[in-house]
Amino acid sequence: MFALKKTEIVQKILGERVLPTDASGEAYAPANIALCKYWGKRDPELNLPVNGSLSISLQERGTRVSMAPSERDTLLINDELLAADDPKHVRLFDFIDLFRVDSAPALRVDTQSSIPIAAGLASSASAFAAVVMALDRAGGWNLFARELSILARMGSGSASRSIYHGFVEWHPGVLENGMDCFAESLYLQWPELRVGLLALNTDTKKVGSREGMNRTVRESVLYQCWPDTVSRDLAEIRTAVQERDFTRLGAAAESNACSMHATMLGCRPPLLYWLPETVETLHRVWGLRNDGVSAYATMDAGPNVKVLFLEREESALREAFPLLDVIQPFASVEV
Amino acid sequence: MFALKKTEIVQKILGERVLPTDASGEAYAPANIALCKYWGKRDPELNLPVNGSLSISLQERGTRVSMAPSERDTLLINDELLAADDPKHVRLFDFIDLFRVDSAPALRVDTQSSIPIAAGLASSASAFAAVVMALDRAGGWNLFARELSILARMGSGSASRSIYHGFVEWHPGVLENGMDCFAESLYLQWPELRVGLLALNTDTKKVGSREGMNRTVRESVLYQCWPDTVSRDLAEIRTAVQERDFTRLGAAAESNACSMHATMLGCRPPLLYWLPETVETLHRVWGLRNDGVSAYATMDAGPNVKVLFLEREESALREAFPLLDVIQPFASVEV
Repeated sequence: MFALKKTEIVQKILGERVLPTDASGEAYAPANIALCKYWGKRDPELNLPVNGSLSISLQERGTRVSMAPSERDTLLINDELLAADDPKHVRLFDFIDLFRVDSAPALRVDTQSSIPIAAGLASSASAFAAVVMALDRAGGWNLFARELSILARMGSGSASRSIYHGFVEWHPGVLENGMDCFAESLYLQWPELRVGLLALNTDTKKVGSREGMNRTVRESVLYQCWPDTVSRDLAEIRTAVQERDFTRLGAAAESNACSMHATMLGCRPPLLYWLPETVETLHRVWGLRNDGVSAYATMDAGPNVKVLFLEREESALREAFPLLDVIQPFASVEV
Repeated sequence: MFALKKTEIVQKILGERVLPTDASGEAYAPANIALCKYWGKRDPELNLPVNGSLSISLQERGTRVSMAPSERDTLLINDELLAADDPKHVRLFDFIDLFRVDSAPALRVDTQSSIPIAAGLASSASAFAAVVMALDRAGGWNLFARELSILARMGSGSASRSIYHGFVEWHPGVLENGMDCFAESLYLQWPELRVGLLALNTDTKKVGSREGMNRTVRESVLYQCWPDTVSRDLAEIRTAVQERDFTRLGAAAESNACSMHATMLGCRPPLLYWLPETVETLHRVWGLRNDGVSAYATMDAGPNVKVLFLEREESALREAFPLLDVIQPFASVEV
């Protein structure tokens, strides 16, 4: 894949720095859940988003990447060797090629994921963030976090946010080359916050997120309202996080997620990632709220539901959802 | 209820005509399914819609109303006497009061409905249309169909369409008094068209359609896109009906229904009439299409699904949905 714009950005950021022939490095990056969603690109090559987004990183759930010189490019995902023509292999080494010039070595890349299988957590976000951080270490580049974020973004949009722990805001920027389009930590702690993962369905999605996003932008009349929706939601979510106002955060995040899925319903034919279990779960979360339990749902481009709540509601949530996988985003994390 | 604007319209249409003391009459009006939905009012008292809509009437599924002078106002629905403070009794006689002056009699109103219980067919549409037609006969007024449509609309918005059989378009109009806001028959036959009703859930809705509509207009940022969505869909549905292009009709009607539900997801908290069975049914309809069976779904403000298809697909549909209630909108109907 020839990626002129990406190459230019890498050169701009790396300058004289290169990947040495003995390049080897290791890094970990957390998965993240968007509280205000990324949905739609203004530049598909550079993954520049239409709108800003805000996420919470999932602490110990993420991807560890180690890389070392090798005879030929090799990718192992959770100890499983991928074929050289596997789309994941191709996508990763197309990306790594952006950083290799002349004498740069072939690499063996080992990725270990602690993301529950099919929980609807985009593993590409933590993987590309960790790859960029591992490259930085392998090359001894000492890049700034926002430079790592820009580079990770070019691998997978939401990877820009997985550079950080805790609350993260990804700025959409206005520049054509995306040099002002990076994520930053909000430097805020909220130790009581919990994210519950519900893996409702483990089948492969019929329509990938990238295709879903592109179809929505192209086909859905309702997508025209998405930028306004995000303007409102993003400001509100940022304020709610700053003020540790959980009710406000939950209401805005849930509304934002539902609005994103709503934009997909305007496609032809309608695009619906939800399954019966999704709707059952949503009604159950709303039923809990009716009973005084403060819990809110969010969903990404898939059928699975993530539940936001505070520590004090954990037992009520575990009772309602026995299979809930509870994440503590701020458990001994420095942000 | 004091309804100044409504009273003015009734006077404008009736002129010198009144309801005689021996007023008695009988009429039938069909239920209807909107292929392009009515969602949002520009005037809540007169039920003037934000957008035009287009429906198909359900032939023998509807409401028969007979009325006759009586000692006191009495409403029977399917032979069951309602209390005088029942909201349905109050709503009906508030409406009938618009037509009664001075010596007009108390009335006994008998309604018989052939609409399957809880199939998500607004029974108020056929009921108010039949009431207006029965009043017209009782008074010997001989009103034009579009006048009946305006009067029925003031009882229940979609009742404006139930004055007619077959395909019906309801014009939104631009006048403040709504005198240009009435429905008309498209005068088109499509004998092969079928509408399948699926009563998935018979519980009372937690949020009535009127409240859902009002909440969406008030709370949902996505509603701003609804008028544009309808402009596109309505033109396409009208053309598809005129050209008997079923694929185009189905695709546009399904998209319009999904877009309407999408606007509700933008409410806070999100408004979702769908149940797990709704989503299961939608995926099954889409699965049928994938298998070459031309069928499309539509839904109103409730969890139940209506399926559009042509005669030749009837056995495939009955196999997929054993409980399907198949309506032939054009079975020996003169439009």
